[in-house]
Amino acid sequence: MTDHPFDTAMTLEPAGEGAWRGQTSDDYWNMVGPFGGVVAASLFRAALDDARRQGDPVALTINFCAALAKGEFDVTARPARTNRSTQHWTMEMTQGGGGAVATATAMFGARPDTYAHRTISPPAVAGFDALTRFTPNGLGWTQRYDFRFAEGAPEWNGDPETPGATRSALWIRNDPPRPLDFVGLVALCDIFFGRIIHLRKKMVPFGTVSMTAYFHATPDDLAAVGDAPILGLADSRIFDRGFHDQSAEIWSADGRLLATSHQVVYYRD
Amino acid sequence: MTDHPFDTAMTLEPAGEGAWRGQTSDDYWNMVGPFGGVVAASLFRAALDDARRQGDPVALTINFCAALAKGEFDVTARPARTNRSTQHWTMEMTQGGGGAVATATAMFGARPDTYAHRTISPPAVAGFDALTRFTPNGLGWTQRYDFRFAEGAPEWNGDPETPGATRSALWIRNDPPRPLDFVGLVALCDIFFGRIIHLRKKMVPFGTVSMTAYFHATPDDLAAVGDAPILGLADSRIFDRGFHDQSAEIWSADGRLLATSHQVVYYRD
Repeated sequence: MTDHPFDTAMTLEPAGEGAWRGQTSDDYWNMVGPFGGVVAASLFRAALDDARRQGDPVALTINFCAALAKGEFDVTARPARTNRSTQHWTMEMTQGGGGAVATATAMFGARPDTYAHRTISPPAVAGFDALTRFTPNGLGWTQRYDFRFAEGAPEWNGDPETPGATRSALWIRNDPPRPLDFVGLVALCDIFFGRIIHLRKKMVPFGTVSMTAYFHATPDDLAAVGDAPILGLADSRIFDRGFHDQSAEIWSADGRLLATSHQVVYYRD
Repeated sequence: MTDHPFDTAMTLEPAGEGAWRGQTSDDYWNMVGPFGGVVAASLFRAALDDARRQGDPVALTINFCAALAKGEFDVTARPARTNRSTQHWTMEMTQGGGGAVATATAMFGARPDTYAHRTISPPAVAGFDALTRFTPNGLGWTQRYDFRFAEGAPEWNGDPETPGATRSALWIRNDPPRPLDFVGLVALCDIFFGRIIHLRKKMVPFGTVSMTAYFHATPDDLAAVGDAPILGLADSRIFDRGFHDQSAEIWSADGRLLATSHQVVYYRD
């Protein structure tokens, strides 16, 4: 933990076994609540940092149930099953006396050397230094990342009658830079703007309702990335009756696939 | 509910609010436990059939924590959050006094008419009637589906030193035929053989540890499919250090994308 604003946003105070208390951060504020990536990362951290946790991160699912209000929130995390080489966790975030604001499950496991194979390649795009920083629309959390679109930058005021490209490839770096770890990687998995904005070329009401991330990197792999920019790729398959899917890849600059993520996004248009 | 073996396997007896008791079915037995698709479908049914459930299915995540033994199992399901147009559920399956054998979350929502768009097309393949039924290796559950591979049938005894194609396109129909519903669709989301088998062209120890399904169809869309074969497409991005990812699409014969699913699969090789 450092005094980086992300680490401040990630601070969880222990409140008993499997119980933690956190506080929302204005540095990562979004339109009606915190940036979902920090919500996801806080829930994940409650399992990752638990003394009972065994194994490296493999899978995480976060369900965004309601917008968090500014202020304190509570997180509970319990190991649902511990096996010889895998462990499953269930987490929940609440605020005040209402129902859950987020639910989650996570899975950890041993990562032995095995046969390895990759069917995909990193997107062939211009490098971070050759691209211009994207100017966001002023929301707090978007200023905490240096986004450089190589492909598929959003058009906020395009012609909505002609579908925009749903695929984006972009370099992303924390601002200020921060060494990559699993908590930071979880936030990156939720960093892509809703594809509905790219498709429609205008702002519409939208929000991720569920996200699943799969981790293909070990702690050593993340340490090797350090605070260098990572390369993200995002696209969708279908937009239909109020929800669209979205899948993303997170690559290191030297071509390691660090994580893949999938989400379903609510929209009204 | 009918006397179809899938409906028999899906039978859950109410055991109090949010509590159900079921029984494993030899008709859907796999190597060391039931076919994961019926485990997922049983957990999903506990939320879907609850009187408190609001909205149509949107997302489901199942974590397979341990193999079920033959016999009775218990399922609990609780609404974690109910909003105006979305509802989130948390489910868990246990057996005897041990930890969870499966955990799950589900999300339901209103599906109003909105702007719609699809970036992908169904795979262009030969039709169900033009293809030959795949002869499985005798496991109970594989006999409950008529698999017809148009592309990427598994080779059980190929040369493991040359990577096999990880992509498969196949028609799938219940045997005996059964009208499609959401419970049946959940099972279909988990029906694809582990891509590691296709890659390695030999049997290795493997099993899905987490699966997420997104539903793009309404109950009316599924009713329109009836008991016709559906077209499935599956592929993976990466196999590394004991786990591989896998993504799938489920299409109706007339080209509607009914569901997409993603999973992470344990393997040793």
